[in-house]
Amino acid sequence: MADATSREFFTTRTVAEALTGFRPGRRTGTETVPLHLALRRVPAEPVRAPHPLPGFPRSTVDGYAVRAADTYGVSEGLPGYLTVTGAVLMGAAPQEAVTPGTAIAIPTGGVIPPGADAVVMIEYTAEVMPGTVEVVRPAAPGEGVVRADEDVRPGDEITGSGRPLRPQDLGMLAAAGVTSVAVHKKPVVTIFSTGDEVVPPDTPELKPGQVRDATAAPLAALAADAGGEPVFGGIMPDEPGMLEAALRDALPASDVLVISAGSSVGARDETANAVARLGQPGIWCHGLAIKPGKPTLLAECAGVPVIGLPGNPRSALVVFRLIGAPVVRLVGGCTVPPPEPSTRARLSRDLASATGRLDVVQVKINDGMAVPVFGLSALLSVLTAADGYIVIPEEATGLDAGSEVNVILYA
Amino acid sequence: MADATSREFFTTRTVAEALTGFRPGRRTGTETVPLHLALRRVPAEPVRAPHPLPGFPRSTVDGYAVRAADTYGVSEGLPGYLTVTGAVLMGAAPQEAVTPGTAIAIPTGGVIPPGADAVVMIEYTAEVMPGTVEVVRPAAPGEGVVRADEDVRPGDEITGSGRPLRPQDLGMLAAAGVTSVAVHKKPVVTIFSTGDEVVPPDTPELKPGQVRDATAAPLAALAADAGGEPVFGGIMPDEPGMLEAALRDALPASDVLVISAGSSVGARDETANAVARLGQPGIWCHGLAIKPGKPTLLAECAGVPVIGLPGNPRSALVVFRLIGAPVVRLVGGCTVPPPEPSTRARLSRDLASATGRLDVVQVKINDGMAVPVFGLSALLSVLTAADGYIVIPEEATGLDAGSEVNVILYA
Repeated sequence: MADATSREFFTTRTVAEALTGFRPGRRTGTETVPLHLALRRVPAEPVRAPHPLPGFPRSTVDGYAVRAADTYGVSEGLPGYLTVTGAVLMGAAPQEAVTPGTAIAIPTGGVIPPGADAVVMIEYTAEVMPGTVEVVRPAAPGEGVVRADEDVRPGDEITGSGRPLRPQDLGMLAAAGVTSVAVHKKPVVTIFSTGDEVVPPDTPELKPGQVRDATAAPLAALAADAGGEPVFGGIMPDEPGMLEAALRDALPASDVLVISAGSSVGARDETANAVARLGQPGIWCHGLAIKPGKPTLLAECAGVPVIGLPGNPRSALVVFRLIGAPVVRLVGGCTVPPPEPSTRARLSRDLASATGRLDVVQVKINDGMAVPVFGLSALLSVLTAADGYIVIPEEATGLDAGSEVNVILYA
Repeated sequence: MADATSREFFTTRTVAEALTGFRPGRRTGTETVPLHLALRRVPAEPVRAPHPLPGFPRSTVDGYAVRAADTYGVSEGLPGYLTVTGAVLMGAAPQEAVTPGTAIAIPTGGVIPPGADAVVMIEYTAEVMPGTVEVVRPAAPGEGVVRADEDVRPGDEITGSGRPLRPQDLGMLAAAGVTSVAVHKKPVVTIFSTGDEVVPPDTPELKPGQVRDATAAPLAALAADAGGEPVFGGIMPDEPGMLEAALRDALPASDVLVISAGSSVGARDETANAVARLGQPGIWCHGLAIKPGKPTLLAECAGVPVIGLPGNPRSALVVFRLIGAPVVRLVGGCTVPPPEPSTRARLSRDLASATGRLDVVQVKINDGMAVPVFGLSALLSVLTAADGYIVIPEEATGLDAGSEVNVILYA
């Protein structure tokens, strides 16, 4: 623990400070992806409609295209009669125009023929004899019609930048004939595990004192959820220089570096030392006022944000969700993060908390009650048993049983 | 419209009836996937822990492993002194046991040596001379220790069946050495579009009356979100027999068939006729008490659920989200659907609604207000402008301005 005193140089920060203050400027470049691979990708620039939509005036009902004026005053008792001069076919231009006293049969979605300004629903008509339709309800101009640019006008922004594309956005792009989209590249998130005791998950037999790496797999999942492309950097032993060399190797191909630091003070200091030597501007904070997750390190080295997580898998996942995922999103150009599932619930019991520290408490939801799941921060089963978590903010000294809390739900 | 009368044979159902009553029995088979591809996949059976976790008693702190009894009664004023006989290394078995009057240095996560039953935190100790540690706080038995089976006992269910795997579940599986998981195969969701007017999205120039297929792409996205494997069946013209033949071809390789039916009554009837001839038990409902989305058809043909959606892209997406996605999840073995993002908001204006019909109203969220986005159901821009939607239930006649509503948010 030769460098233990170096910890004193770094300030502990609050979660709020980290979220507002630790905003690396790195952004991924742009690539073009086909529409069917564009779900949840983040457009690099707004897409504007090349032409109006639907592109032609369309009928919204099955019925007869008419001149609205020809239907004024008609009623059940005093129907109007129009000469049917033809029928619009789906996907085809009308063959003739509607003239005074005439009507043209039209299906939902058909092109409104020239001369017509309304469509009378079939329910208000009857073909009383071949070629003549009886109309029992007047239509106002524009009734039963979608204008050629009513959905989208040319030049309208159909998708903005910075917000991941949703299913309906893909529909709008398809409608506009935009079948590929310029999106931010997925940030490459290189994940390192550290610790002499940590072995790969597929290790069949453990030696005494060994544990399988339980952090890299869920970190990769959280990074992917945040729009990143996770890459495993490997498991680094607690050997001076090895982590630094591995980080240095990974730096050029990474947009974000994530290290689940060793759990001992010595291993954590070793991580801090390795990161400190990696490049400027260097360490932003070492220590976060959060429980669990205090031994968190945030840095920016040679333009790459570096997130040093606590050694306990549970603490590491709590911190990565709160602090790491927003960094991955930001680097990937996502400025409008998607909403998270959450629910309101009543707290089942009192919870104590220290002021100045944000507490993340895992909870189960039972009958509208948020029931805290307790256990040492070394226990991963606390996380797998939980349905979600609540946050006790820095300024609170705790929460009373029965208080209404916002539970962020795990999806 | 030769078969128009056939519509009379089918009952209109409510959304609640569809959700509880239309529950096809089909379930996909099982496949084994590696852990790094298992996120959000649905385990086919519970996974039980093959051995205890962490697997050995571990220290939760940096400090000294001791016999708790040796620390009883010590204080700042009256410290105790123990002989340090060694140090535990990370990832290695302890080399010696703790005997009365001795202590062994141990890092967080180290193996508790035989004979020790507690760990005194380093903060409460001082190495007063080489080989002797001063202890100023007593430790209770078990303090600073995670028991060998405290996280998981052998045989404990570490992931259940039916709930999509979350990031932390992958962590627990990795910890237990389970690196591949038996999961339900993704349901193959074959998506057909229909309509003489519908052309592929990559059609560069539209002829009068043509529209690009705006439904298949977002339906594929929603199917994927529901755990399905979307497959495009193609765009079928309104030509008798063609849709039926295409559906029949797709049936053997599909777990769910989805058809965005033509928008006209004739096209819809053609879809219903094609589906009716496809196999038993056949059509379950034709007409759903929902706005938008009334012309919805639900069927089960030769063991495959068939979802016939309205022709308007917006209506089709609303119905698929409410009715289709739950069917895809069910067929894929997902019995515990993940939570959806939602928020409470105040309604900005009165909304009318007919009793007996469920209304889905698209809304934007502005300053905690849910502001309805209005527009014809033919307009896709209503969906892309919305942040989410509210549901006015069947029994309501509307909602008053200022009422608190639950907004399901688009992610």
